[in-house]
Amino acid sequence: MRKERLEDIGEKELIFRLGKFMPKNQTSDDCALIKTKDENLLVNNDSLVENVHFNESTICAQDLGWKAVISNISDLLSSGSKKTIGITISLILPTKTEWIWVEELYKGINKALKKYGGIILGGDCSSGKEKIISITALGIQGELELQRNACKPGDIILTTGIHGLSKLGFMLQSKLNLDNDVSLSENLKSKSIEHFCRPKVYPNFLKNLLKTCSNKKIRRIGCTDSSDGLFQALQDLAIASNCKAIINYEKVPKDKDWPKGDKWDEYYFFGGEDYELVFSLPKKWAKKLCKIDKSINEIGYFAKGEASIEFSDNNKNKLLKNTPFKHF
Amino acid sequence: MRKERLEDIGEKELIFRLGKFMPKNQTSDDCALIKTKDENLLVNNDSLVENVHFNESTICAQDLGWKAVISNISDLLSSGSKKTIGITISLILPTKTEWIWVEELYKGINKALKKYGGIILGGDCSSGKEKIISITALGIQGELELQRNACKPGDIILTTGIHGLSKLGFMLQSKLNLDNDVSLSENLKSKSIEHFCRPKVYPNFLKNLLKTCSNKKIRRIGCTDSSDGLFQALQDLAIASNCKAIINYEKVPKDKDWPKGDKWDEYYFFGGEDYELVFSLPKKWAKKLCKIDKSINEIGYFAKGEASIEFSDNNKNKLLKNTPFKHF
Repeated sequence: MRKERLEDIGEKELIFRLGKFMPKNQTSDDCALIKTKDENLLVNNDSLVENVHFNESTICAQDLGWKAVISNISDLLSSGSKKTIGITISLILPTKTEWIWVEELYKGINKALKKYGGIILGGDCSSGKEKIISITALGIQGELELQRNACKPGDIILTTGIHGLSKLGFMLQSKLNLDNDVSLSENLKSKSIEHFCRPKVYPNFLKNLLKTCSNKKIRRIGCTDSSDGLFQALQDLAIASNCKAIINYEKVPKDKDWPKGDKWDEYYFFGGEDYELVFSLPKKWAKKLCKIDKSINEIGYFAKGEASIEFSDNNKNKLLKNTPFKHF
Repeated sequence: MRKERLEDIGEKELIFRLGKFMPKNQTSDDCALIKTKDENLLVNNDSLVENVHFNESTICAQDLGWKAVISNISDLLSSGSKKTIGITISLILPTKTEWIWVEELYKGINKALKKYGGIILGGDCSSGKEKIISITALGIQGELELQRNACKPGDIILTTGIHGLSKLGFMLQSKLNLDNDVSLSENLKSKSIEHFCRPKVYPNFLKNLLKTCSNKKIRRIGCTDSSDGLFQALQDLAIASNCKAIINYEKVPKDKDWPKGDKWDEYYFFGGEDYELVFSLPKKWAKKLCKIDKSINEIGYFAKGEASIEFSDNNKNKLLKNTPFKHF
């Protein structure tokens, strides 16, 4: 009999099984928490694999370097990091890779570090069949612990920014066939390519959270980033916190030029690589935060019930049948 | 004109160029030092790539997991880590990989962590064309900083253990043609395979160093590990510390059954993956340490002069013409 292979298991089940190898006190979060005598540290690892996460026709080396850093800093921020210490870079590159490509990659890496903080702590390079950029980032845990399993029924669900743009940017860069019935504005096109190639993160997020907090007893906030898509982020929060996410479709913020239609909803909710923060807060706190940070929007709330996602408008629940992007 | 490729550059030059991207205060060491308010941390990353660092016919998944952890702990110890906090594991695996292989890999990883300390802090898994195990390990810096650039003229050069065994183990596992003129003892064969598949490290090294130190002013010791071979380790120390290593061939400890001959010297000095510690100490300290730790041997000394390696017996200098194993 043929032995069970990874392709038979699927991504979710694989992650679940790998989690079983970890000590019980480790959480389902992207970042690991390291307790030291004084400050707690956050450590995160993210790998980008050629032809799985990127390919040369859609993103140049400098943008790729930028993005590899951003994807790690986003994970740190979504865990409550108040400062990025630095990163180690492990490169696997085919021997035929041009040196200029490596230089450009590091240019992008250093630009992102210059903007968001942190230094290159070390790195190594080996040869391999395909390009892989594996970055480990270290941050310092701030006053609030942001974790997937800290959402509570009654909490308001919020997101930073707008979703779907990165997916559209990817499709434009890939010259994939888009919906022929719509004509996209030049503004939306260039914004989407920018989101895909040079995503941004929210270094002031933690500060604003602290500024608007009126109940100092709350030390844990439910949060993750939407690197695997808005739906995946909501699902991860719902499962880890064991409650139901109710989404108000009308409240979900879209770009003013974003086309209507099921396909465009799919791009929006399942697109991925947006690096927005998806989190939940008690009502008062949520209102205060939205007032001082205009990039943040309320999109729904958590309720008691089976870990799942529902739209408050029942017509929209057909959207949920779609399968998110798989890395496996 | 064809642009310069990594294959044109060579491993040493590539590492040198990558070093230029790092801040000036970072050293040439395998581990990066992170200063926190209380304790300093060491962070290390090491990747094992299929068909570059391993292949399925020479090492099983469980041994590979063990070895991936050991190669990281060895780097931490050679930088003066007093405790391994834990590791993050980034796996790239072809989708046709059998689940049992992953289970066995983690069994080996957990066995090594159980023996030498540390926990799995996190990890992720992506698909790719070839198997890659990339581990980031975190340790706590002990009282002594062990760094490549801290050797001094007049220091005695010492190593733990015996070299060459891992290389012989690799050749036996690969069923490569060995020297037909020698018959190897069964004891040497099994010891070599053990060294290759289940290398060990020296968790008491730092304790013994501190116990035998009579000059408390010395806080930095020249040290590295021999993961890339004894010669490479000596060369790295000599270059980083800018002094000349003089090796006494007669003093270099060999297994009692190790055959004689140029080929066997080559395996010994250039073999790699031995994970022994190569370091230098003031004479008194060296003598005291060798007395309490019988696994440690004096093999030469550092002198003023061009960063290089020389044998005190001039006849042996022809050995130096060999090129060490390249990962690029």
